[in-house]
Amino acid sequence: MGAPVTVRGRFISIEGGEGVGKSTQIAALAAFITQKGFEVLLTREPGGTEGAETIRQLVLGGSAERWMPRAEALLFAAARSDHVERLIEPALASGKWVISDRFIDSSRAYQGGGSGLSDNDIMTLHQIGSRGMLPDRTLILRLDTKEAVSRAAARDQNQPDRIQGRTEIFHSDVDMAFVSFAEREPRVRLVDASGTADAVTARLLTEISDLLEPA
Amino acid sequence: MGAPVTVRGRFISIEGGEGVGKSTQIAALAAFITQKGFEVLLTREPGGTEGAETIRQLVLGGSAERWMPRAEALLFAAARSDHVERLIEPALASGKWVISDRFIDSSRAYQGGGSGLSDNDIMTLHQIGSRGMLPDRTLILRLDTKEAVSRAAARDQNQPDRIQGRTEIFHSDVDMAFVSFAEREPRVRLVDASGTADAVTARLLTEISDLLEPA
Repeated sequence: MGAPVTVRGRFISIEGGEGVGKSTQIAALAAFITQKGFEVLLTREPGGTEGAETIRQLVLGGSAERWMPRAEALLFAAARSDHVERLIEPALASGKWVISDRFIDSSRAYQGGGSGLSDNDIMTLHQIGSRGMLPDRTLILRLDTKEAVSRAAARDQNQPDRIQGRTEIFHSDVDMAFVSFAEREPRVRLVDASGTADAVTARLLTEISDLLEPA
Repeated sequence: MGAPVTVRGRFISIEGGEGVGKSTQIAALAAFITQKGFEVLLTREPGGTEGAETIRQLVLGGSAERWMPRAEALLFAAARSDHVERLIEPALASGKWVISDRFIDSSRAYQGGGSGLSDNDIMTLHQIGSRGMLPDRTLILRLDTKEAVSRAAARDQNQPDRIQGRTEIFHSDVDMAFVSFAEREPRVRLVDASGTADAVTARLLTEISDLLEPA
């Protein structure tokens, strides 16, 4: 008899603008996958490890002008590198499923959509920092932009962070970027985030059902 | 009559292992260039701006294992991006000369020499972070490696930082990297750092004399 074989876990990232209900849906997804008999690790970006959380404080704190776009993109890539190498990869290798609240597609949508940096630049940073590691599935929760911004503003009215403080037009550009990723990359799925939480969860489960089937 | 023309300043970086006398020589170079009628800005890496100094604390503080090589390289590139965009480029554009204690070649020698990252990776990060901006002249102060390590150890014996704490073999690899840059890139000059401070300064001035001539 050989040693027991550990089947690599699956990596799911959840994306979407502020106020689309990511936290609720992540909890529901984790509960469902756990019921299927898998161990699930929940994490977030920027952050997830001790080092990445210190970078998170640098990059989300302070005034909107604290970082220029190039330095900001490098800081996000540094945080992600630590997160992938020290938390996500070891967890997947040990058979755990990992669900991350945001991952590379947030950097592509928020940092790669203008300001002199291209999507190719962001992906090059990801290649050097994290060997270009991509999720098995990326679920993008979408709401009408105005509704999402007003939900997020209501929640964070006292302390929007550096990214949340950006304008509605900016958030519309972010949504267009997410749509373009879904058009070109099969791992990326757009999910309507309107309606009840249960209805949204059902839509998400449809998008990951193939991952849960025995290989 | 047109508006007065501002001649762009020159950018000199000083490199070399710990204990080769960089600080003394930077002061001497600055005094000489100031005497020639130029305004001189002295700066250092990692650091030089408020943002870059906060990254410096992250990258030099803590244990040797605090950052993996990929995250470390991205953090250095982020600090350099802020430094170039907010301090070095504006100073050069206003006609000042800039002397930086370390610049891109330190990243190439310390982060690009192994650990899975290539010199090409480091230069790609520099291209994205700082548009690949290079010094007009890079002066590499060199001492016999053992002498340099023992000088540095005597100075910093109570608190070597994360990079200084690395071993003598590592520092020898760094020196070999600097030599290879000088062989391939005319802007990079190797300077013998042995002998009196005045003798070393005289060698350095020889290597920048062409920059001081009227265009």
